[in-house]
Amino acid sequence: MNFQLTTEYLDALKEAISAGNDAFIDGLLQELHASDIAEIFNELDIEESKFVYKHLSDEEAGKVLVEMDEDARERFLASLTSKEIAEQFIDNMESDDAADVISELSDKVQNEVLSHIEDPEQASDIVDLLNYDSNTAGGLMAKELVKVNVNKNMIDCVRELRSHADDIQHIYAIYVVDDDDKLLGLISLKKVLTSSLRVPIKQLFNEEIISVKTNTDAEEAARVMEKYNLVVLPVVDVIGRLVGRITIDDVVDVIRKEETEDVQKMGGMEVLDEPYMTMPFWQLIKKRAGWLVVLFIGETFTATAMSFFQDQIAKAVVLALFVPLIISSGGNTGSQASTLIIRALALGEVTIKEWWRIIKKELLIGLVLGIILGTIGFLRIALWSAFVNVYGEHWILVGATVGVSLIGVVLWGNLSGSLLPIVLKRFGRDPAVSSAPFVATLVDVTGLIIYFTVATLMMRGVLL
Amino acid sequence: MNFQLTTEYLDALKEAISAGNDAFIDGLLQELHASDIAEIFNELDIEESKFVYKHLSDEEAGKVLVEMDEDARERFLASLTSKEIAEQFIDNMESDDAADVISELSDKVQNEVLSHIEDPEQASDIVDLLNYDSNTAGGLMAKELVKVNVNKNMIDCVRELRSHADDIQHIYAIYVVDDDDKLLGLISLKKVLTSSLRVPIKQLFNEEIISVKTNTDAEEAARVMEKYNLVVLPVVDVIGRLVGRITIDDVVDVIRKEETEDVQKMGGMEVLDEPYMTMPFWQLIKKRAGWLVVLFIGETFTATAMSFFQDQIAKAVVLALFVPLIISSGGNTGSQASTLIIRALALGEVTIKEWWRIIKKELLIGLVLGIILGTIGFLRIALWSAFVNVYGEHWILVGATVGVSLIGVVLWGNLSGSLLPIVLKRFGRDPAVSSAPFVATLVDVTGLIIYFTVATLMMRGVLL
Repeated sequence: MNFQLTTEYLDALKEAISAGNDAFIDGLLQELHASDIAEIFNELDIEESKFVYKHLSDEEAGKVLVEMDEDARERFLASLTSKEIAEQFIDNMESDDAADVISELSDKVQNEVLSHIEDPEQASDIVDLLNYDSNTAGGLMAKELVKVNVNKNMIDCVRELRSHADDIQHIYAIYVVDDDDKLLGLISLKKVLTSSLRVPIKQLFNEEIISVKTNTDAEEAARVMEKYNLVVLPVVDVIGRLVGRITIDDVVDVIRKEETEDVQKMGGMEVLDEPYMTMPFWQLIKKRAGWLVVLFIGETFTATAMSFFQDQIAKAVVLALFVPLIISSGGNTGSQASTLIIRALALGEVTIKEWWRIIKKELLIGLVLGIILGTIGFLRIALWSAFVNVYGEHWILVGATVGVSLIGVVLWGNLSGSLLPIVLKRFGRDPAVSSAPFVATLVDVTGLIIYFTVATLMMRGVLL
Repeated sequence: MNFQLTTEYLDALKEAISAGNDAFIDGLLQELHASDIAEIFNELDIEESKFVYKHLSDEEAGKVLVEMDEDARERFLASLTSKEIAEQFIDNMESDDAADVISELSDKVQNEVLSHIEDPEQASDIVDLLNYDSNTAGGLMAKELVKVNVNKNMIDCVRELRSHADDIQHIYAIYVVDDDDKLLGLISLKKVLTSSLRVPIKQLFNEEIISVKTNTDAEEAARVMEKYNLVVLPVVDVIGRLVGRITIDDVVDVIRKEETEDVQKMGGMEVLDEPYMTMPFWQLIKKRAGWLVVLFIGETFTATAMSFFQDQIAKAVVLALFVPLIISSGGNTGSQASTLIIRALALGEVTIKEWWRIIKKELLIGLVLGIILGTIGFLRIALWSAFVNVYGEHWILVGATVGVSLIGVVLWGNLSGSLLPIVLKRFGRDPAVSSAPFVATLVDVTGLIIYFTVATLMMRGVLL
């Protein structure tokens, strides 16, 4: 089962294609899952892809198309006529996948493809789905579903099921609706198989049904499925009529996307809407430069802060040597703290109401971490001074200044790092936005002030 | 459907509990899903929980228990006898959930609970599951499944299904096995419902089946389900015998856990094995201090690097003012780049074989970003100098030195940030490990050398 696309495999395949070896290709495709064939298609050039896809059934071809990488799919579809796309792919796809693929085409090609779809219901389903925002439940759902009127019997239920068996790849439940198509409940396939066929549906169906609206946020729909352990979630319109269903595989993609967005925001950039490799150069620059410039301007305040301490630096150049060490320690601690809190907030492990508990915890943690780093910092200076005279005769004072400053900066970095996400969330902002670099910038400026203030106090009359 | 646990709701409930209002509680529980009841249980104290759970059916009680927060569950179970835990919860749970709950108990209580389970098959299933590592497919799977011998008819299939309907909450497929219990394929429920009952299974079942082994890594199992869009995945032993099945809801948890681990590693700490709030204080310190100390020791090289340029700093103190600005710009750019590449690697958007394409792309991006920040840096110094004499008469030279250094440092930071994850992955390491702070530390040390070298070259004869 565990298909691995190796170079040797691909070479053998390409050879068979150029030799026009139909039997070989047929045998191969028979063995493989659509997701594996899609992986192969990602690696083939246009002519090769065209040769291979002719060996696929229309149904299989649609599945392969959906699983392909976006850029490979775009290139492949560009080589086909709108009629080919409609008849050999879209006609046999489930409506949500069909709408996703069509939405990637230009407006002109979209219209051509839609006009070539043979099944009018399929065409109207797709047109309908194209209207929904892709970040909503409506944008995720498929229109194909099995529903039955609440006044019917189980035998009607089975009949309905059989009549849809060919269009719908996986059926997990039969939905029960009233005369106005309003969603009332569901019957599981297990129930159908274990009940007498003469029983009225009214007596059997499960009224405890969870649904979302078409305009529900996609991430919210994902959370609902996760919380209630659902594999399929019905979608209703504004007045409660059943219009579609979301399946768990689409939700897994939503979760992955959400996580990627969080990670990118935490890394200090705007969210990329496309995979890294296909993102155009200037788009990448745009997504990255904005936050870099904001952080840079914030960071220029370090120069301002330090200019207030020019005299001290001129008198004791040794002070300047530890500037990067001290501010980066604050930044690293703050970045740990903000990562922890952002993630705990995202997973619902903590709520902003618990801010006081978090502060108390992080104050103590920051103190302990600060003492650890401060001690190492002092020992490092003491150790070096034992061998070389790099820090002058007052090395103990230098070491103590660095050590005490580290405690203050780490404590403060830790507190800022844990508080900032909570404050952002409190004011309705996304706690993940640019948090780690933002905390670092904040802590850099304040860390310098802490350091030079400690130095001024401790070294007065000796070095300063 | 959208249940929201409000303070008012909880207060009303607590009042009803203290008044012993059984009817109110019954009505309430009837309306709610087990996941919602679990949310309520998380907020109740022991006595209240005990009062409420007596109103739940045994089956419902098990579901609620599984969905509760780990610490609330631990507290609640500690207040019950082993007999109560076994008979009122474990007996009616699916084996995977039962094993998960039992694994959280102490060894002594585990044995007691196991000895009180009434159904010997359930007890032996749980004992069996407890043996698997929780990070493997075996640790995720449930033992309950419906299987049928390949030599039977569809009617046997339906019979088998009906006989299991009560033990298994959701049935998605019937597995087909040979006389030795080896997995051969599956029959979907849809197929059962749409086929004649007299047909032999041999003629109908789907041989294209994807399975994993009990010792397959849990994350790998998750990837297989994701790739092939599966809601249930059969698990076989080392010689191919069917032993269990994994459902998609468990895999969603695996994905969430995997993402959390990645985020925490990227934030520069060890992975926490527990939720933030329940993690003991010294454990948190341990998870965080290790990497902080490593990074701190790396960062002490900044002091070493700067000590080589003490003379320059003494002559031109103004140089010291821009140290934080310059190194943080390199760090921020590097952290963006490493975030991008780590995420793209994790999602399979890029492979390490494409390193040369990535370098070419990132070199250009780094150059453009460097020019942007360098220009802003120069303008900032020019602007300030127009109003105050903070950077002396040679402000143009200072501005040019800072600007050119920024180009170099940003370019280098960007390159290091994008290369480090690739190098780590190439040598079989996890690219996410401590990447952002690690890149920052690397770039800090090298950035200082770039800066002071540029300064020495450009200012020679004027300021230095």
